[in-house]
Amino acid sequence: MSAQSRAAGPSPYVRAADYVAAALIFLRDNVLLAEALRPEHVKPRLLGHWGSCPGITLVHAALNALVRERGADVLLVTGPGHGAPAIHANLWLEGTHERHDPALARTGAGLRELARRYCAPDGFPSHLSPAVPGTLHEGGELGYALATAVGAALDAPDRVVACVVGDGEAETGPTAAAWHSTKFLDPVTCGAVLPVLHLNGYKISSPTLFATMTDEELTALFRGHGWDPRIVDETGPAPGAALTTAVLDAHTTLRELQRRARAGDLPVRPAWPMIVLRTLKGAGAPAEVEGTPIEGTFHSHQVPLPDAREDPEQLKALESWLRSYRPEELFDEEGRPAPEVLAALPEPDGLIGAQPAANGGRLRRPLPLPPLAPYALALPDGPGSATAGPTRVLGDWLTELTEATAERRDFRIVSPDELASNKLDAVLEATGRAYVWPVEEYAEDLDRGGRVMETLSEHNCQGWLQGYLLSGRHGLFPTYEAFASIVDSMANQYAKWLKMSREVPWRAPVSSLTYLLTSEGWRQEHNGYSHQGPGFISNLLDRNSTVTGVYLPPDANTLLVTMERLLDETGKINAVVAGKHDAAQWLDLDAARAHCRAGASSWTWAGTAGDGPAEAVLACAGGIPTVESLAAADLLRRDLPDARIRFVNIVDLCALAPPDRHPHGMSPERFHDLFGEDTPVVLDFHGYPSAVHQLLHGRPRPDRFHVRGYVEEGTTTTPYDLLALNGTTRHDLARTLLRHLDRPSGRTRRLADRYAHHRDELRRELRRTGEDPAEITAWRWPG
Amino acid sequence: MSAQSRAAGPSPYVRAADYVAAALIFLRDNVLLAEALRPEHVKPRLLGHWGSCPGITLVHAALNALVRERGADVLLVTGPGHGAPAIHANLWLEGTHERHDPALARTGAGLRELARRYCAPDGFPSHLSPAVPGTLHEGGELGYALATAVGAALDAPDRVVACVVGDGEAETGPTAAAWHSTKFLDPVTCGAVLPVLHLNGYKISSPTLFATMTDEELTALFRGHGWDPRIVDETGPAPGAALTTAVLDAHTTLRELQRRARAGDLPVRPAWPMIVLRTLKGAGAPAEVEGTPIEGTFHSHQVPLPDAREDPEQLKALESWLRSYRPEELFDEEGRPAPEVLAALPEPDGLIGAQPAANGGRLRRPLPLPPLAPYALALPDGPGSATAGPTRVLGDWLTELTEATAERRDFRIVSPDELASNKLDAVLEATGRAYVWPVEEYAEDLDRGGRVMETLSEHNCQGWLQGYLLSGRHGLFPTYEAFASIVDSMANQYAKWLKMSREVPWRAPVSSLTYLLTSEGWRQEHNGYSHQGPGFISNLLDRNSTVTGVYLPPDANTLLVTMERLLDETGKINAVVAGKHDAAQWLDLDAARAHCRAGASSWTWAGTAGDGPAEAVLACAGGIPTVESLAAADLLRRDLPDARIRFVNIVDLCALAPPDRHPHGMSPERFHDLFGEDTPVVLDFHGYPSAVHQLLHGRPRPDRFHVRGYVEEGTTTTPYDLLALNGTTRHDLARTLLRHLDRPSGRTRRLADRYAHHRDELRRELRRTGEDPAEITAWRWPG
Repeated sequence: MSAQSRAAGPSPYVRAADYVAAALIFLRDNVLLAEALRPEHVKPRLLGHWGSCPGITLVHAALNALVRERGADVLLVTGPGHGAPAIHANLWLEGTHERHDPALARTGAGLRELARRYCAPDGFPSHLSPAVPGTLHEGGELGYALATAVGAALDAPDRVVACVVGDGEAETGPTAAAWHSTKFLDPVTCGAVLPVLHLNGYKISSPTLFATMTDEELTALFRGHGWDPRIVDETGPAPGAALTTAVLDAHTTLRELQRRARAGDLPVRPAWPMIVLRTLKGAGAPAEVEGTPIEGTFHSHQVPLPDAREDPEQLKALESWLRSYRPEELFDEEGRPAPEVLAALPEPDGLIGAQPAANGGRLRRPLPLPPLAPYALALPDGPGSATAGPTRVLGDWLTELTEATAERRDFRIVSPDELASNKLDAVLEATGRAYVWPVEEYAEDLDRGGRVMETLSEHNCQGWLQGYLLSGRHGLFPTYEAFASIVDSMANQYAKWLKMSREVPWRAPVSSLTYLLTSEGWRQEHNGYSHQGPGFISNLLDRNSTVTGVYLPPDANTLLVTMERLLDETGKINAVVAGKHDAAQWLDLDAARAHCRAGASSWTWAGTAGDGPAEAVLACAGGIPTVESLAAADLLRRDLPDARIRFVNIVDLCALAPPDRHPHGMSPERFHDLFGEDTPVVLDFHGYPSAVHQLLHGRPRPDRFHVRGYVEEGTTTTPYDLLALNGTTRHDLARTLLRHLDRPSGRTRRLADRYAHHRDELRRELRRTGEDPAEITAWRWPG
Repeated sequence: MSAQSRAAGPSPYVRAADYVAAALIFLRDNVLLAEALRPEHVKPRLLGHWGSCPGITLVHAALNALVRERGADVLLVTGPGHGAPAIHANLWLEGTHERHDPALARTGAGLRELARRYCAPDGFPSHLSPAVPGTLHEGGELGYALATAVGAALDAPDRVVACVVGDGEAETGPTAAAWHSTKFLDPVTCGAVLPVLHLNGYKISSPTLFATMTDEELTALFRGHGWDPRIVDETGPAPGAALTTAVLDAHTTLRELQRRARAGDLPVRPAWPMIVLRTLKGAGAPAEVEGTPIEGTFHSHQVPLPDAREDPEQLKALESWLRSYRPEELFDEEGRPAPEVLAALPEPDGLIGAQPAANGGRLRRPLPLPPLAPYALALPDGPGSATAGPTRVLGDWLTELTEATAERRDFRIVSPDELASNKLDAVLEATGRAYVWPVEEYAEDLDRGGRVMETLSEHNCQGWLQGYLLSGRHGLFPTYEAFASIVDSMANQYAKWLKMSREVPWRAPVSSLTYLLTSEGWRQEHNGYSHQGPGFISNLLDRNSTVTGVYLPPDANTLLVTMERLLDETGKINAVVAGKHDAAQWLDLDAARAHCRAGASSWTWAGTAGDGPAEAVLACAGGIPTVESLAAADLLRRDLPDARIRFVNIVDLCALAPPDRHPHGMSPERFHDLFGEDTPVVLDFHGYPSAVHQLLHGRPRPDRFHVRGYVEEGTTTTPYDLLALNGTTRHDLARTLLRHLDRPSGRTRRLADRYAHHRDELRRELRRTGEDPAEITAWRWPG
């Protein structure tokens, strides 16, 4: 940047980008101001947030300098996605838009087309989105940019992930927690994150909290988090140079830190540089219009001149604002950016919009999944003849997978719980828990370069994993079932990202995000009511059906088969529910494969209907419901041997939905084979019964399905009592089935009463002893 | 505390509390060790987290000293709820348990009974819960203690809310954001919060992140947040005295700060004291058992001697651990605490467990709700003849309510958005936005003592409001509909709290927590896909039906009536969906009252069936669906005048559920009157159709309900196009109804085709112009 341009205000590049961003918001024609601005040149709907655009462009320009001067490998994550006009402006100037679509050429016609598409039906949305090249974060719901940026830097030692964090976003809890991420970022095996906290002072009409903090407070806060903060004031008349210098300095510091660490001189508490950037809100907009101050105030947060099309004074103000950038110096007569503007750009390969990690599906290599057979349980004496803890068996297989990816470093496990408590701790034989800060004695299995990331923040786990997957890698998210709802909203937003990604032809699909919901609510009888909540499944079912899956493997082998499938899959969000406690095993590996392939199938060995017609179906989905339903089947087989009952287990929950509502939905024929047309069905479900009711809508006579599940009754009690509180004991299930058999008789009524009576007896007994009766705990499938 | 007791280890009170806490976890008999410990004295199931108990007792003991020496009005919020044994121990020692239930007397028999109830069916859960006196926070799901504590301190100028934040909890995003709360806590009108960050070093098997931070880092971090941190090390052999001194010092500082502020000498950036307390994890437990180190390591996190009943060596270790407290010095032969122990307690009125705010329903005074009539809209020319923005009308009424509570100071509005953007800004005429830090020019309506709290953190808003309501006050939570899911999990936990509270006889119900879901997804066509998500409603519907309500007032008057009801109600969580844009108004105040009382009713003026039987029902729930459904009714009335169509509007969504599933469920007779038995129903719903499907389960022939709603299709486009993407335009609704009429004819088929064709034409037109066609925007109910 020449001394002259500094003296004259922002650089030509910054002026050009600011001009284009403003043009995208306001104009649909005459985009280069070849003639005087008329109302019909202005769009009828003005959308976008001008307030953060100038600051985003300053960051973009500084990163261009970083790539140009240092050849750095830069990915940009933009938290304030509503600053999309600035990103589009920069992508258009650097030719990224043109490379994806010649209609968006760097000419006046191309700019006009870009302006036409911005916020138009079928065009680019008002926020960032998967349709925007160089982007892996939408920034619509605020809070997740920083953790996502950290995820993209993991195991990419040469990458610098710059992350713009808006001062609105900085108020959120997820962002507040994400500042601790440095404690997990290994300078040897991982890249760097360069956060730019963008303080432009205001939200829609209030000051932001961070903008009211002093430099001393900001410095203390970020030092306390372990960063090396640098405050840059760009509120003056020629913004750009100070930020560029700060970015280059920060890069020098972070590379030196990495160089030393990689040479074996590991810093004790690596203080990564971060930048606090103060800018004038909506810089460049008119200082004042019709008596209202605009530039530097909250009035420039969204569209500063909202009535530019109708109000001649605003139209005049808009024209003089746009002309203040002197577009005639920035673009030639064809609308091509002037050489002075283009001189600010790096070589084509280094352009921010060309960063391959922003389209991570292209970089993704399928995982080297180990064979399942060595880990699968044999059932030589049939169903129920072996006992195992499903997550422990999975843990052994994951250990081999973790070893197999030791060189590639593209598989991580994130968790807010501890693998040890989820019985997945075998994995810690293959890798450590990532942690960089020094720890006291007694800490176990910690390792700077470890690929297990444990922290008591679901938000960080989710953000990290999203960034890791979106940049082309793989991972797994084991988490406490009840607390998965903490990231309901992040999962919702990520589902939107995935769904929109499918519609972008140049985007390659990324690895599916798979939650392993452990510490199931049914085994939280000891941790109490707060730990009982299967709602995450229900939330996921409301997402677009093309991007979601819910799996309830009933035993260890079905869990292995499910995980083998999901870790090889792309483009989805999956929830898998699995137990960690020792439990009976039902299917050998071949049967498990067949069962998982089908999604749901009849376990003829457990029913009494053989392959023939059934008078009732006992169905179940989930590990605990499978045990209770089998115990119910056992009762009925003994007490009512002539009843023709079909036993159905459901592993892929969405198979229940009609095929036009979910791609996993089983065909009407297959549904008929399992559930008949008007056969009564008692279905014991792991989660809320409403989740099943909503899936069954559109199936024949859904009201014959009597779904039992968690109905929000709980406390600290025994396992059987927790089932009883929710009406899901074996005795309740058997009773419900008897009530709906099409043969009311004294015999079935007496039997139903006996079951109810016995359940009450058992509950009295467990109240006396404080433990479940042996009859319950010692029950085994008789084979 | 005497020099002698310091020299000898913890004070008798602390020793007694630690002893009792350990006894509660382990023993079911011989609770005072009157004889040698035998296996049958040990409970069969050992539950509770010993690790945090000793630290919690230190805090309790220090607060006792604060009350004793200063007469302070102290409320304790305990983040680590799994440290419940410590709380029970302190409540038992101070006689709070005894006061609520003589069976829990301060005798050996009372202690035995408390031990028996702890974690037993029908007893006290393993976490804190509403059943525990002096408690307003369960601390099961971690992250919310600090914001809840702040909420309880608002507008209670003499209250000191001490808050134990565990070092696990401190890793969460919600807690990280809550440290900024001081910027909202007015030293004049509000009380103080005294956080105690309890660093005991470990989670289940990993170190906590905060425990690895240096004193310098911790000090910088909290100073940066604006606090005045004091680090207290209680890892030595006689813990207690240093913390007590620190608590008393902190109290001196905070009272002085309040005194000065209340005398008019307002501190610029009030630095409230907070304490970082380092303790030895599980202090007091055996140093080592069978070669494993226990005290001070993660092995003491939960139950340190898990096999004490079966393993003689562990039993021996347990006995010698318990005897190390010298219970014979602490309790007399009857098990009554010794005078030395009791001497540490404050007077009965000041006991921590006696704090009235912890049972805030008792303190609650109903709000002085202003009459609605002056605010209600008149409709002299019938339905549709007036136009208003519902939230703006509500805002005017809330302004009077805010004025009416200016002296009482027991009504607040919290919001992560800005009232201005939600058109509720009239309220800012009656009060300001609470903010304590100095702000730049151009900031509007800020006021230290303001009762509107805006911050871009849904978590803080929810935590603050919970604390405020639970301590006996009132409030409202207007929030962006799509982002309400950010607090799904907090709402879930709060619903559990409310449901359990109903079962505690001495707990008085607190004001309902009401969300006003604004910026509805259907009017987020400009902000794009990320801003479109009505899932919060669905999440709420899965909560226990006794504590939930969902309301969709279709216009301003119904919104007023709904709010009047909910702001007077107790014990529930309600979601109210309301638009902020100008829209036609349908019901005058009397009609609105009748409609809201019914929950759902037939709008005969809009249908063609009069009071007679209908061949189809056009039903709707929500403001936008009401407009589209009326427009559909208008089309059909014109094009198929002989069709007998009933028009039904639903304002209380849960009225759809069968009465045995939700207390709002309308009777079968009323349901029949509105929807018949097998009449086809087209129901246009504001949210996900699955939410309605789940409510309808159990109603006659639910498959005849053709529910339309948001099906997760969206982007930045025009309002009509967003409806079209989800199949919910007036044309789609009319078409759907025609398809299900029981009279297939060329005429209805041609009409349906015409509607579809016209919809497609309109979509082509809006793509040309970028705006919705005037036919759509100018439509008015013809009356």
